[in-house]
Amino acid sequence: IVSKLPDVGTSIFSVMSQLAAECGAINLAQGFPDYDPPQVLSEALARHATTPGHQQYAPMPGLLRLREQISLKTALLYGITPPDPATEITVTSGATEALYAVLAAVVRPGDEVLVLEPAYDLYGPAIRLQGGVPVYVPLRLPDFRPDWDLVAAALTPRTRLVLLNSPHNPSGAVLTALDLRTLAALLENTATLVLSDEVYEHMVFDGQPHRSALQEPVLAERSFVLSSFGKTYHATGWKVGYCIAPPLLTAEVRRVHQFLTFAVSTPTQHALADVLPDTGLYTALPAFYQRKRDLFVELLRPTRFELLPAPGAYFQLARYHQISQEDDVTFARRLTREAGVAVVPVSAFYHDGRDQGLIRFCFAKQEETLAAAAARLAAL
Amino acid sequence: IVSKLPDVGTSIFSVMSQLAAECGAINLAQGFPDYDPPQVLSEALARHATTPGHQQYAPMPGLLRLREQISLKTALLYGITPPDPATEITVTSGATEALYAVLAAVVRPGDEVLVLEPAYDLYGPAIRLQGGVPVYVPLRLPDFRPDWDLVAAALTPRTRLVLLNSPHNPSGAVLTALDLRTLAALLENTATLVLSDEVYEHMVFDGQPHRSALQEPVLAERSFVLSSFGKTYHATGWKVGYCIAPPLLTAEVRRVHQFLTFAVSTPTQHALADVLPDTGLYTALPAFYQRKRDLFVELLRPTRFELLPAPGAYFQLARYHQISQEDDVTFARRLTREAGVAVVPVSAFYHDGRDQGLIRFCFAKQEETLAAAAARLAAL
Ligand SMILES: CSCCC(=O)C(=O)O
Ligand SMILES: CSCCC(=O)C(=O)O
Repeated sequence: IVSKLPDVGTSIFSVMSQLAAECGAINLAQGFPDYDPPQVLSEALARHATTPGHQQYAPMPGLLRLREQISLKTALLYGITPPDPATEITVTSGATEALYAVLAAVVRPGDEVLVLEPAYDLYGPAIRLQGGVPVYVPLRLPDFRPDWDLVAAALTPRTRLVLLNSPHNPSGAVLTALDLRTLAALLENTATLVLSDEVYEHMVFDGQPHRSALQEPVLAERSFVLSSFGKTYHATGWKVGYCIAPPLLTAEVRRVHQFLTFAVSTPTQHALADVLPDTGLYTALPAFYQRKRDLFVELLRPTRFELLPAPGAYFQLARYHQISQEDDVTFARRLTREAGVAVVPVSAFYHDGRDQGLIRFCFAKQEETLAAAAARLAAL
Repeated sequence: IVSKLPDVGTSIFSVMSQLAAECGAINLAQGFPDYDPPQVLSEALARHATTPGHQQYAPMPGLLRLREQISLKTALLYGITPPDPATEITVTSGATEALYAVLAAVVRPGDEVLVLEPAYDLYGPAIRLQGGVPVYVPLRLPDFRPDWDLVAAALTPRTRLVLLNSPHNPSGAVLTALDLRTLAALLENTATLVLSDEVYEHMVFDGQPHRSALQEPVLAERSFVLSSFGKTYHATGWKVGYCIAPPLLTAEVRRVHQFLTFAVSTPTQHALADVLPDTGLYTALPAFYQRKRDLFVELLRPTRFELLPAPGAYFQLARYHQISQEDDVTFARRLTREAGVAVVPVSAFYHDGRDQGLIRFCFAKQEETLAAAAARLAAL
């Protein structure tokens, strides 16, 4: 059998998590917390798991009561008119399914899709599976901000979609209102759409706000905005996310979603709808994660890792050239095997495997875990 | 925005379920039970929902303990060598995701995919989204058996995949060992693959066995075989299915699955792994559903519906020409609105909407529900 993705291996996150397990390493590679969801949420799932009548197919676009809560939350957070639950919100099997569904719904063979790199490893292959052509624009190091002149130069009449990701994985970089306005100016009067991956929306630090594409009207009218309950509620294993988009765009996503997975776990959707009104569960997140970041930075101070700014998400990038001259893959594997701390080499986020001498730590971990990892790293 | 699927509307199952809700009709349209999963299973989910450490990403191919149980069950049921959990089994977000992932993994632009019609409504659009060409071969009415000469005539060097579905939705028709051997003879020495959708594997009646593509070696070596815990455990809302395929084929499915959804709900997978060893939960299903079918047939005897044989799955087809001369869509809608019983028009399973004067009832309902529906239908 000839593969449609011959150059695509197992996702780096699976590879490093497996290596971590084999070596008994502390897993700061794959992005997930080592703590559990809020107890009210787990208990809600337990309750709905045993509620008669809650175990069959949810409606294809998601439970209405969950979509209504998403609408309220979004309006409250971003100061916008509530998105219409009936026509603008679709619940998906994680933001991953939403991403794939958007690409499958709008990218045609030959269409160009603009991707700011480094980028999450699924974007490129998922675009190519649609016959689309990923056009890569590098983010500027060391702050990983977009160079809008490069973006402008890369836009063509064939550009079907621009992918945004803020807060950014792997760097944590955060787009500003000015960034969004600049992109809006570039896209106004074009037919180019936007996919805005905002799964880390509740993890922006140092008093900065998260700016959503929904807040910039020219973008909102052409954007698919994605979020993830897995990130917000420390429940990456629950696999529930959602997509907000104007009615015509939502209609296209749903045409694909109905064939991709049809619907999402009913008891899980009920549980999420129960806790969503408790705004405190997510408004506490910036401070919660900033504390972890600050602690981790403090813990790594005695090491020779050079830490980059980490203004959002739950990742910390580090330069290691004072420790080793190895390429990042070799270094990440050796760190996992010999130091007992698993990390992700940042080259995995470049389509050409470009080595920037950077590794990524996930700091969504208990303080003890971060301290134990730091102790191992200090011994290097 | 120009749609990639301009002729595809909302899935008939969503449409009829919504109409049923609006009209207060008894929903015998969309295929799902109106009873709950076994209590041990619901309680297992409740337990795992509150188990620390069970709330983050499962491994991409599925929890190993679940894949091991699937392997044992499959070997036991079909008398075959256990499929290798590491390289031959992938847990998916329902059989729907498995179907889409297989198509996305192997169908290239211009590839032909042979579909026996009537067929589940996602096959055609999902093939077309890959740039593939569905080639439709009609099943023979009234028994919905394949005419293998027609299949042989439709096979070309461009045939990438043959889709099988046994027990068959919507007819319940069941492939025999001879059918599978006949197809094997046609495909031996070709590069054509097989996608065998066996989600109703535990619903075959009148003492017949379900024959899996896994039992016919020439098919097994080229088949993706799908099943669904939603069907087996009365939990269609849990959205967990799986795909069994030889290592090289599994590798291709996983390349796509990792970008389509990445992984499936961790607590749900744990719950399923807990109950899978209890073979009684699924060996009881043929008798359980045969009783429902027999009751429903008995209840409809006084009506002027002409019932077709229903040897498997949980559907009963009916001819209504003694009641009405309307096309099946008009009749199904009127039945929902006026008689208060929602059904699916069989034309929805034909790519060209061919009207056979047939409607589909789902009999996966409590006896009271079936009796109430029959009473309404008798009043016609
Ligand atoms: C789906 S596994 C990857 C998790 C993640 O978002 C990351 O580690 O970047
Ligand atoms: C995914 S909704 C459709 C359920 C079903 O399999 C059917 O009704 O045929």
